[in-house]
Amino acid sequence: MRFTSETSFDGISEQLFTLGDIPGVLWTPEGATGARPLILMGHGGGQHKKAPGILARARRFVADRGFAVAAVDVPGHGDRPKDDELNRIATENQARADAGEDLAPLIAGFQALVARRTVPEWRAVLDAVQHLEYVGPGPVGYWGVSLGCGLGVPFVAAEPRVRAAVLGLGGALASAEAAARITVPVEFLLQWDDERVPRAQALALFDALASTEKSLHANPGRHGEIPAFELDSTLRFFARHLG
Amino acid sequence: MRFTSETSFDGISEQLFTLGDIPGVLWTPEGATGARPLILMGHGGGQHKKAPGILARARRFVADRGFAVAAVDVPGHGDRPKDDELNRIATENQARADAGEDLAPLIAGFQALVARRTVPEWRAVLDAVQHLEYVGPGPVGYWGVSLGCGLGVPFVAAEPRVRAAVLGLGGALASAEAAARITVPVEFLLQWDDERVPRAQALALFDALASTEKSLHANPGRHGEIPAFELDSTLRFFARHLG
Repeated sequence: MRFTSETSFDGISEQLFTLGDIPGVLWTPEGATGARPLILMGHGGGQHKKAPGILARARRFVADRGFAVAAVDVPGHGDRPKDDELNRIATENQARADAGEDLAPLIAGFQALVARRTVPEWRAVLDAVQHLEYVGPGPVGYWGVSLGCGLGVPFVAAEPRVRAAVLGLGGALASAEAAARITVPVEFLLQWDDERVPRAQALALFDALASTEKSLHANPGRHGEIPAFELDSTLRFFARHLG
Repeated sequence: MRFTSETSFDGISEQLFTLGDIPGVLWTPEGATGARPLILMGHGGGQHKKAPGILARARRFVADRGFAVAAVDVPGHGDRPKDDELNRIATENQARADAGEDLAPLIAGFQALVARRTVPEWRAVLDAVQHLEYVGPGPVGYWGVSLGCGLGVPFVAAEPRVRAAVLGLGGALASAEAAARITVPVEFLLQWDDERVPRAQALALFDALASTEKSLHANPGRHGEIPAFELDSTLRFFARHLG
Protein backbone atom coordinates (compact mmCIF):
# COMPACT_ATOMS: atom_id res chain seq x y z
CA MET A 1 0.00 0.00 0.00
CA ARG A 2 1.53 3.27 -1.15
CA PHE A 3 0.20 6.71 -0.23
CA THR A 4 0.45 9.20 -3.08
CA SER A 5 -1.07 12.33 -1.51
CA GLU A 6 -2.57 13.61 1.70
CA THR A 7 -4.78 16.63 2.16
CA SER A 8 -6.95 17.78 5.02
CA PHE A 9 -10.13 19.85 5.12
CA ASP A 10 -12.56 20.63 7.94
CA GLY A 11 -10.90 18.15 10.29
CA ILE A 12 -11.01 15.25 7.79
CA SER A 13 -7.83 13.77 6.35
CA GLU A 14 -8.01 12.43 2.78
CA GLN A 15 -5.24 10.11 1.62
CA LEU A 16 -4.98 8.81 -1.93
CA PHE A 17 -3.25 5.44 -2.23
CA THR A 18 -2.52 2.58 -4.57
CA LEU A 19 -2.62 -1.06 -3.57
CA GLY A 20 -0.95 -2.93 -6.40
CA ASP A 21 -2.78 -1.45 -9.40
CA ILE A 22 -5.89 -0.45 -7.42
CA PRO A 23 -6.27 3.32 -6.85
CA GLY A 24 -8.04 4.15 -3.62
CA VAL A 25 -8.84 6.86 -1.09
CA LEU A 26 -9.00 6.76 2.69
CA TRP A 27 -10.78 9.33 4.83
CA THR A 28 -10.12 9.52 8.59
CA PRO A 29 -10.48 12.12 11.33
CA GLU A 30 -7.46 14.45 11.24
CA GLY A 31 -4.89 13.30 13.79
CA ALA A 32 -6.75 10.05 14.50
CA THR A 33 -5.00 7.39 16.59
CA GLY A 34 -6.18 3.90 17.50
CA ALA A 35 -8.77 1.48 16.10
CA ARG A 36 -12.14 2.60 14.76
CA PRO A 37 -14.99 1.22 12.61
CA LEU A 38 -14.21 1.20 8.89
CA ILE A 39 -16.78 1.71 6.12
CA LEU A 40 -15.90 0.44 2.65
CA MET A 41 -17.92 2.23 -0.04
CA GLY A 42 -18.61 0.87 -3.53
CA HIS A 43 -19.33 3.50 -6.21
CA GLY A 44 -21.97 3.39 -8.95
CA GLY A 45 -21.57 2.48 -12.63
CA GLY A 46 -19.62 5.08 -14.63
CA GLN A 47 -18.62 6.79 -11.37
CA HIS A 48 -15.42 6.61 -9.31
CA LYS A 49 -13.99 6.55 -5.77
CA LYS A 50 -14.47 10.30 -5.24
CA ALA A 51 -17.82 10.77 -7.02
CA PRO A 52 -19.97 13.41 -5.26
CA GLY A 53 -22.35 10.85 -3.73
CA ILE A 54 -19.44 8.89 -2.25
CA LEU A 55 -17.55 11.97 -1.04
CA ALA A 56 -20.53 13.59 0.70
CA ARG A 57 -21.45 10.41 2.56
CA ALA A 58 -17.83 9.54 3.44
CA ARG A 59 -17.25 12.95 4.99
CA ARG A 60 -20.42 12.62 7.12
CA PHE A 61 -19.35 9.14 8.33
CA VAL A 62 -16.01 10.57 9.45
CA ALA A 63 -17.25 13.90 10.80
CA ASP A 64 -20.29 12.62 12.72
CA ARG A 65 -18.99 9.28 13.99
CA GLY A 66 -15.19 9.29 13.72
CA PHE A 67 -15.27 6.30 11.36
CA ALA A 68 -12.58 5.56 8.75
CA VAL A 69 -13.93 5.31 5.19
CA ALA A 70 -12.24 3.73 2.16
CA ALA A 71 -13.28 3.63 -1.51
CA VAL A 72 -11.45 2.29 -4.55
CA ASP A 73 -12.02 2.56 -8.28
CA VAL A 74 -13.83 -0.44 -9.80
CA PRO A 75 -11.99 -1.96 -12.83
CA GLY A 76 -12.51 0.23 -15.88
CA HIS A 77 -13.56 3.23 -13.75
CA GLY A 78 -11.90 6.38 -12.34
CA ASP A 79 -8.10 6.31 -12.45
CA ARG A 80 -7.90 2.71 -13.65
CA PRO A 81 -6.89 1.99 -17.25
CA LYS A 82 -9.59 1.28 -19.79
CA ASP A 83 -10.43 -2.40 -19.63
CA ASP A 84 -10.83 -3.88 -23.12
CA GLU A 85 -12.91 -6.86 -22.04
CA LEU A 86 -15.32 -4.82 -19.87
CA ASN A 87 -15.53 -2.12 -22.55
CA ARG A 88 -16.40 -4.68 -25.20
CA ILE A 89 -19.13 -6.23 -23.06
CA ALA A 90 -20.54 -2.84 -22.06
CA THR A 91 -20.66 -1.78 -25.73
CA GLU A 92 -22.34 -5.05 -26.72
CA ASN A 93 -24.87 -4.70 -23.89
CA GLN A 94 -25.71 -1.14 -24.93
CA ALA A 95 -26.30 -2.32 -28.49
CA ARG A 96 -28.52 -5.17 -27.27
CA ALA A 97 -30.48 -2.78 -25.01
CA ASP A 98 -30.86 -0.32 -27.92
CA ALA A 99 -32.21 -3.21 -29.99
CA GLY A 100 -34.93 -3.71 -27.39
CA GLU A 101 -33.42 -6.44 -25.22
CA ASP A 102 -34.35 -6.42 -21.52
CA LEU A 103 -31.71 -4.37 -19.64
CA ALA A 104 -31.90 -6.08 -16.23
CA PRO A 105 -30.30 -9.45 -17.17
CA LEU A 106 -27.57 -7.64 -19.14
CA ILE A 107 -26.69 -5.52 -16.09
CA ALA A 108 -26.82 -8.62 -13.89
CA GLY A 109 -24.38 -10.55 -16.07
CA PHE A 110 -22.01 -7.60 -16.27
CA GLN A 111 -22.00 -7.06 -12.51
CA ALA A 112 -21.37 -10.76 -11.84
CA LEU A 113 -18.35 -10.61 -14.13
CA VAL A 114 -16.93 -7.50 -12.44
CA ALA A 115 -17.59 -8.92 -8.95
CA ARG A 116 -15.25 -11.83 -9.65
CA ARG A 117 -12.48 -9.21 -9.62
CA THR A 118 -13.72 -6.76 -7.01
CA VAL A 119 -14.45 -9.24 -4.21
CA PRO A 120 -10.77 -10.27 -3.83
CA GLU A 121 -9.60 -6.68 -4.48
CA TRP A 122 -11.82 -5.25 -1.74
CA ARG A 123 -10.78 -7.95 0.72
CA ALA A 124 -7.13 -7.00 0.05
CA VAL A 125 -8.02 -3.34 0.65
CA LEU A 126 -9.52 -4.22 4.05
CA ASP A 127 -6.35 -6.16 4.94
CA ALA A 128 -4.11 -3.21 4.03
CA VAL A 129 -6.22 -0.42 5.56
CA GLN A 130 -6.81 -2.31 8.80
CA HIS A 131 -3.02 -2.62 9.22
CA LEU A 132 -2.82 1.15 9.71
CA GLU A 133 -2.59 2.03 13.41
CA TYR A 134 -5.27 4.73 13.08
CA VAL A 135 -7.78 2.33 11.47
CA GLY A 136 -7.01 -1.02 13.09
CA PRO A 137 -9.10 -4.19 13.37
CA GLY A 138 -12.44 -2.58 14.24
CA PRO A 139 -15.82 -3.66 12.86
CA VAL A 140 -16.40 -3.09 9.14
CA GLY A 141 -19.47 -1.72 7.37
CA TYR A 142 -20.23 -1.70 3.66
CA TRP A 143 -22.16 0.97 1.73
CA GLY A 144 -23.02 0.59 -1.96
CA VAL A 145 -26.03 1.13 -4.24
CA SER A 146 -26.62 0.38 -7.92
CA LEU A 147 -23.31 -1.09 -9.22
CA GLY A 148 -22.13 -0.77 -5.61
CA CYS A 149 -24.99 -3.13 -4.64
CA GLY A 150 -24.36 -5.59 -7.47
CA LEU A 151 -20.72 -5.82 -6.40
CA GLY A 152 -21.47 -5.35 -2.71
CA VAL A 153 -23.81 -8.32 -2.29
CA PRO A 154 -21.19 -10.95 -3.22
CA PHE A 155 -18.57 -9.01 -1.22
CA VAL A 156 -20.66 -8.84 1.96
CA ALA A 157 -21.59 -12.51 1.53
CA ALA A 158 -17.89 -13.47 1.27
CA GLU A 159 -16.31 -11.21 3.89
CA PRO A 160 -16.93 -12.05 7.58
CA ARG A 161 -15.39 -8.75 8.77
CA VAL A 162 -18.44 -6.90 7.39
CA ARG A 163 -20.91 -6.57 10.26
CA ALA A 164 -23.56 -4.32 8.66
CA ALA A 165 -24.35 -3.17 5.12
CA VAL A 166 -26.34 -0.50 3.33
CA LEU A 167 -27.34 -1.77 -0.12
CA GLY A 168 -29.95 -0.86 -2.71
CA LEU A 169 -30.95 0.14 -6.24
CA GLY A 170 -30.22 -3.43 -7.25
CA GLY A 171 -32.24 -6.43 -8.32
CA ALA A 172 -32.44 -10.11 -7.57
CA LEU A 173 -31.31 -11.19 -11.03
CA ALA A 174 -27.78 -10.00 -10.29
CA SER A 175 -27.28 -11.44 -6.87
CA ALA A 176 -30.12 -13.37 -5.22
CA GLU A 177 -27.90 -16.41 -4.69
CA ALA A 178 -25.21 -14.41 -2.86
CA ALA A 179 -27.89 -12.43 -0.97
CA ALA A 180 -29.15 -15.69 0.54
CA ARG A 181 -25.73 -16.04 2.21
CA ILE A 182 -25.88 -12.58 3.87
CA THR A 183 -26.88 -12.71 7.53
CA VAL A 184 -25.66 -9.34 8.88
CA PRO A 185 -28.06 -6.40 9.39
CA VAL A 186 -28.90 -4.63 6.12
CA GLU A 187 -30.57 -1.32 5.33
CA PHE A 188 -31.85 -1.63 1.75
CA LEU A 189 -32.68 1.47 -0.32
CA LEU A 190 -35.28 1.18 -3.07
CA GLN A 191 -36.48 3.94 -5.37
CA TRP A 192 -40.18 3.39 -6.05
CA ASP A 193 -39.98 4.82 -9.59
CA ASP A 194 -36.57 3.35 -10.50
CA GLU A 195 -36.25 3.38 -14.28
CA ARG A 196 -33.29 0.95 -14.25
CA VAL A 197 -34.27 -1.68 -11.69
CA PRO A 198 -37.80 -3.18 -11.92
CA ARG A 199 -39.58 -2.77 -8.58
CA ALA A 200 -40.39 -6.48 -8.32
CA GLN A 201 -36.70 -7.36 -8.87
CA ALA A 202 -35.60 -4.99 -6.10
CA LEU A 203 -38.24 -6.33 -3.68
CA ALA A 204 -37.09 -9.86 -4.56
CA LEU A 205 -33.47 -8.99 -3.71
CA PHE A 206 -34.55 -7.59 -0.33
CA ASP A 207 -36.60 -10.75 0.19
CA ALA A 208 -33.61 -12.97 -0.67
CA LEU A 209 -31.37 -11.54 2.08
CA ALA A 210 -31.04 -14.10 4.89
CA SER A 211 -30.48 -11.38 7.53
CA THR A 212 -32.83 -11.52 10.52
CA GLU A 213 -32.48 -7.73 10.79
CA LYS A 214 -33.09 -6.05 7.44
CA SER A 215 -35.00 -2.86 6.69
CA LEU A 216 -36.31 -1.88 3.30
CA HIS A 217 -36.52 1.90 2.86
CA ALA A 218 -38.52 2.75 -0.26
CA ASN A 219 -39.04 6.34 -1.43
CA PRO A 220 -40.64 7.91 -4.48
CA GLY A 221 -38.34 8.98 -7.26
CA ARG A 222 -36.03 7.69 -9.95
CA HIS A 223 -32.80 5.68 -9.71
CA GLY A 224 -30.60 8.62 -8.78
CA GLU A 225 -33.01 10.41 -6.46
CA ILE A 226 -32.48 8.86 -3.00
CA PRO A 227 -33.74 11.56 -0.58
CA ALA A 228 -31.20 13.34 1.59
CA PHE A 229 -32.82 12.21 4.85
CA GLU A 230 -31.79 8.62 4.11
CA LEU A 231 -28.17 9.59 4.87
CA ASP A 232 -29.20 10.42 8.44
CA SER A 233 -30.79 7.00 8.69
CA THR A 234 -27.68 5.34 7.25
CA LEU A 235 -25.52 7.07 9.86
CA ARG A 236 -27.70 5.85 12.70
CA PHE A 237 -27.79 2.34 11.22
CA PHE A 238 -24.00 2.11 11.12
CA ALA A 239 -23.68 3.71 14.56
CA ARG A 240 -26.07 1.11 15.99
CA HIS A 241 -24.19 -1.84 14.53
CA LEU A 242 -20.56 -0.70 14.45
CA GLY A 243 -20.46 2.07 17.04
CA MET B 1 -64.28 18.41 27.38
CA ARG B 2 -64.19 17.22 30.97
CA PHE B 3 -61.01 16.09 32.74
CA THR B 4 -61.61 13.14 35.09
CA SER B 5 -58.11 12.53 36.47
CA GLU B 6 -54.58 13.85 36.29
CA THR B 7 -51.40 12.04 37.26
CA SER B 8 -47.76 12.77 36.59
CA PHE B 9 -44.76 10.48 36.24
CA ASP B 10 -41.19 11.17 35.12
CA GLY B 11 -42.00 14.70 34.01
CA ILE B 12 -45.01 13.66 31.90
CA SER B 13 -48.55 14.69 32.81
CA GLU B 14 -51.34 12.23 31.93
CA GLN B 15 -54.91 13.56 31.92
CA LEU B 16 -57.93 11.34 31.34
CA PHE B 17 -60.88 13.14 29.79
CA THR B 18 -64.25 12.63 28.18
CA LEU B 19 -65.50 14.58 25.21
CA GLY B 20 -69.21 13.85 24.99
CA ASP B 21 -69.20 10.06 25.25
CA ILE B 22 -65.62 9.65 23.95
CA PRO B 23 -63.07 8.65 26.62
CA GLY B 24 -59.59 9.98 25.93
CA VAL B 25 -56.16 10.63 27.35
CA LEU B 26 -53.80 13.56 26.89
CA TRP B 27 -50.07 13.46 27.63
CA THR B 28 -48.07 16.68 27.89
CA PRO B 29 -44.79 17.76 29.49
CA GLU B 30 -45.39 18.48 33.18
CA GLY B 31 -45.95 22.21 33.68
CA ALA B 32 -46.11 22.90 29.94
CA THR B 33 -47.26 26.32 28.78
CA GLY B 34 -47.82 27.57 25.24
CA ALA B 35 -48.44 25.95 21.86
CA ARG B 36 -46.69 22.77 20.75
CA PRO B 37 -47.07 20.07 18.07
CA LEU B 38 -49.84 17.56 18.83
CA ILE B 39 -49.75 13.88 17.85
CA LEU B 40 -53.08 12.04 17.67
CA MET B 41 -52.62 8.27 18.03
CA GLY B 42 -55.06 5.62 16.80
CA HIS B 43 -54.91 2.28 18.64
CA GLY B 44 -55.10 -1.24 17.15
CA GLY B 45 -58.07 -3.59 16.96
CA GLY B 46 -59.08 -5.02 20.35
CA GLN B 47 -56.78 -2.49 22.07
CA HIS B 48 -57.48 0.85 23.73
CA LYS B 49 -56.18 4.39 24.29
CA LYS B 50 -53.59 3.30 26.88
CA ALA B 51 -52.49 0.00 25.32
CA PRO B 52 -48.76 -0.63 25.94
CA GLY B 53 -47.74 0.16 22.33
CA ILE B 54 -49.58 3.51 22.48
CA LEU B 55 -48.33 4.42 25.95
CA ALA B 56 -44.65 3.69 25.24
CA ARG B 57 -44.65 5.74 22.04
CA ALA B 58 -46.68 8.60 23.53
CA ARG B 59 -44.27 8.97 26.44
CA ARG B 60 -41.28 9.11 24.06
CA PHE B 61 -42.99 11.77 21.90
CA VAL B 62 -43.52 13.92 25.00
CA ALA B 63 -40.20 13.23 26.73
CA ASP B 64 -37.91 13.57 23.70
CA ARG B 65 -39.67 16.37 21.80
CA GLY B 66 -42.04 18.12 24.17
CA PHE B 67 -45.02 17.24 21.97
CA ALA B 68 -48.58 16.83 23.25
CA VAL B 69 -50.11 13.42 22.50
CA ALA B 70 -53.79 12.45 22.55
CA ALA B 71 -55.50 9.07 22.12
CA VAL B 72 -59.15 8.10 22.43
CA ASP B 73 -60.98 4.78 22.58
CA VAL B 74 -62.42 3.65 19.24
CA PRO B 75 -66.16 2.75 19.42
CA GLY B 76 -66.59 -0.65 21.06
CA HIS B 77 -63.08 -0.52 22.59
CA GLY B 78 -61.54 0.38 25.97
CA ASP B 79 -63.87 2.29 28.28
CA ARG B 80 -66.62 2.67 25.68
CA PRO B 81 -69.80 0.62 26.02
CA LYS B 82 -70.15 -2.55 24.01
CA ASP B 83 -71.47 -1.65 20.58
CA ASP B 84 -74.15 -4.10 19.47
CA GLU B 85 -73.83 -3.37 15.76
CA LEU B 86 -70.02 -3.59 15.69
CA ASN B 87 -70.12 -6.70 17.90
CA ARG B 88 -72.57 -8.40 15.60
CA ILE B 89 -70.48 -7.63 12.51
CA ALA B 90 -67.24 -8.70 14.20
CA THR B 91 -68.84 -11.99 15.25
CA GLU B 92 -70.19 -12.59 11.75
CA ASN B 93 -66.80 -11.79 10.22
CA GLN B 94 -65.06 -14.21 12.58
CA ALA B 95 -67.52 -16.94 11.57
CA ARG B 96 -66.98 -16.21 7.87
CA ALA B 97 -63.18 -16.24 8.34
CA ASP B 98 -63.43 -19.54 10.27
CA ALA B 99 -65.43 -20.91 7.34
CA GLY B 100 -62.49 -20.12 5.05
CA GLU B 101 -63.49 -16.71 3.68
CA ASP B 102 -60.67 -14.29 2.83
CA LEU B 103 -60.02 -12.12 5.91
CA ALA B 104 -58.72 -8.97 4.18
CA PRO B 105 -62.00 -7.74 2.61
CA LEU B 106 -63.86 -8.47 5.85
CA ILE B 107 -61.38 -6.33 7.81
CA ALA B 108 -61.58 -3.62 5.15
CA GLY B 109 -65.37 -3.42 5.31
CA PHE B 110 -65.35 -3.33 9.10
CA GLN B 111 -62.75 -0.54 9.21
CA ALA B 112 -64.66 1.56 6.67
CA LEU B 113 -67.75 1.28 8.83
CA VAL B 114 -65.92 2.32 12.01
CA ALA B 115 -64.13 5.18 10.21
CA ARG B 116 -67.48 6.82 9.44
CA ARG B 117 -67.72 7.41 13.20
CA THR B 118 -64.08 8.02 14.14
CA VAL B 119 -63.24 10.66 11.53
CA PRO B 120 -65.70 13.22 12.98
CA GLU B 121 -64.91 12.12 16.56
CA TRP B 122 -61.18 12.64 16.09
CA ARG B 123 -61.69 16.02 14.44
CA ALA B 124 -63.74 17.08 17.47
CA VAL B 125 -60.93 15.87 19.75
CA LEU B 126 -58.42 18.04 17.85
CA ASP B 127 -60.76 21.04 18.25
CA ALA B 128 -61.07 20.51 22.00
CA VAL B 129 -57.43 19.67 22.75
CA GLN B 130 -56.08 22.54 20.66
CA HIS B 131 -58.20 24.95 22.72
CA LEU B 132 -56.05 24.17 25.76
CA GLU B 133 -53.45 26.90 26.32
CA TYR B 134 -50.65 24.33 26.80
CA VAL B 135 -51.42 22.55 23.47
CA GLY B 136 -52.63 25.35 21.22
CA PRO B 137 -52.90 25.55 17.43
CA GLY B 138 -49.56 23.95 16.54
CA PRO B 139 -48.99 21.47 13.72
CA VAL B 140 -50.65 18.05 14.09
CA GLY B 141 -49.22 14.59 13.40
CA TYR B 142 -51.05 11.28 13.24
CA TRP B 143 -49.70 7.87 14.29
CA GLY B 144 -51.65 4.65 13.74
CA VAL B 145 -50.99 1.12 12.49
CA SER B 146 -53.33 -1.83 11.81
CA LEU B 147 -56.84 -0.62 12.82
CA GLY B 148 -55.12 2.71 13.51
CA CYS B 149 -54.11 2.77 9.83
CA GLY B 150 -57.49 1.69 8.50
CA LEU B 151 -59.10 4.52 10.51
CA GLY B 152 -56.14 6.86 10.11
CA VAL B 153 -56.07 6.97 6.31
CA PRO B 154 -59.58 8.49 5.95
CA PHE B 155 -58.86 10.78 8.93
CA VAL B 156 -55.58 12.12 7.52
CA ALA B 157 -57.23 12.53 4.11
CA ALA B 158 -60.05 14.57 5.67
CA GLU B 159 -58.19 16.71 8.20
CA PRO B 160 -56.00 19.55 6.90
CA ARG B 161 -54.44 20.19 10.32
CA VAL B 162 -52.52 16.89 9.98
CA ARG B 163 -49.12 17.73 8.50
CA ALA B 164 -47.37 14.34 8.74
CA ALA B 165 -48.49 10.77 9.43
CA VAL B 166 -47.02 7.42 10.43
CA LEU B 167 -49.22 4.64 9.09
CA GLY B 168 -48.80 0.93 8.38
CA LEU B 169 -49.86 -2.69 8.82
CA GLY B 170 -52.80 -1.91 6.57
CA GLY B 171 -53.84 -2.80 3.06
CA ALA B 172 -55.21 -1.08 -0.01
CA LEU B 173 -58.56 -2.86 0.13
CA ALA B 174 -59.53 -0.83 3.18
CA SER B 175 -58.48 2.60 2.08
CA ALA B 176 -56.82 3.07 -1.32
CA GLU B 177 -59.40 5.65 -2.36
CA ALA B 178 -58.79 7.83 0.72
CA ALA B 179 -55.02 7.24 0.46
CA ALA B 180 -55.06 8.86 -2.97
CA ARG B 181 -56.21 12.09 -1.26
CA ILE B 182 -53.29 12.15 1.21
CA THR B 183 -50.52 14.53 0.21
CA VAL B 184 -48.64 15.10 3.51
CA PRO B 185 -45.36 13.25 4.28
CA VAL B 186 -45.96 9.66 5.40
CA GLU B 187 -43.72 7.07 7.02
CA PHE B 188 -45.34 3.70 6.26
CA LEU B 189 -44.50 0.60 8.34
CA LEU B 190 -44.84 -2.81 6.72
CA GLN B 191 -44.10 -6.18 8.32
CA TRP B 192 -42.62 -8.45 5.66
CA ASP B 193 -44.18 -11.61 7.17
CA ASP B 194 -47.51 -10.03 8.21
CA GLU B 195 -50.01 -12.86 8.72
CA ARG B 196 -52.99 -10.48 8.64
CA VAL B 197 -52.25 -8.09 5.77
CA PRO B 198 -51.11 -9.60 2.44
CA ARG B 199 -47.77 -8.05 1.40
CA ALA B 200 -49.09 -7.02 -2.02
CA GLN B 201 -52.05 -5.25 -0.39
CA ALA B 202 -49.75 -3.29 1.93
CA LEU B 203 -47.41 -2.33 -0.94
CA ALA B 204 -50.48 -1.23 -2.93
CA LEU B 205 -51.62 1.04 -0.08
CA PHE B 206 -48.16 2.66 0.08
CA ASP B 207 -48.30 3.04 -3.69
CA ALA B 208 -51.74 4.68 -3.51
CA LEU B 209 -50.62 7.53 -1.22
CA ALA B 210 -50.42 10.76 -3.24
CA SER B 211 -47.70 12.20 -0.97
CA THR B 212 -44.55 13.36 -2.76
CA GLU B 213 -42.61 12.49 0.38
CA LYS B 214 -43.44 9.00 1.60
CA SER B 215 -41.08 6.33 2.96
CA LEU B 216 -41.90 2.65 3.17
CA HIS B 217 -40.07 0.94 6.04
CA ALA B 218 -40.38 -2.84 5.74
CA ASN B 219 -38.91 -5.21 8.30
CA PRO B 220 -39.03 -8.97 8.77
CA GLY B 221 -41.53 -10.34 11.26
CA ARG B 222 -45.21 -10.80 11.90
CA HIS B 223 -48.03 -8.23 12.28
CA GLY B 224 -47.20 -7.34 15.89
CA GLU B 225 -43.42 -7.38 15.62
CA ILE B 226 -42.41 -3.87 14.46
CA PRO B 227 -38.76 -3.54 15.60
CA ALA B 228 -37.98 -1.11 18.41
CA PHE B 229 -35.61 0.99 16.25
CA GLU B 230 -38.56 2.15 14.14
CA LEU B 231 -39.71 4.30 17.07
CA ASP B 232 -36.46 6.28 16.81
CA SER B 233 -37.16 6.79 13.12
CA THR B 234 -40.75 7.85 13.87
CA LEU B 235 -39.50 10.44 16.35
CA ARG B 236 -37.10 11.94 13.83
CA PHE B 237 -39.80 11.90 11.15
CA PHE B 238 -42.21 13.88 13.31
CA ALA B 239 -39.43 16.21 14.49
CA ARG B 240 -38.52 16.94 10.86
CA HIS B 241 -42.07 17.79 9.83
CA LEU B 242 -43.67 19.23 12.98
CA GLY B 243 -40.69 20.39 15.04
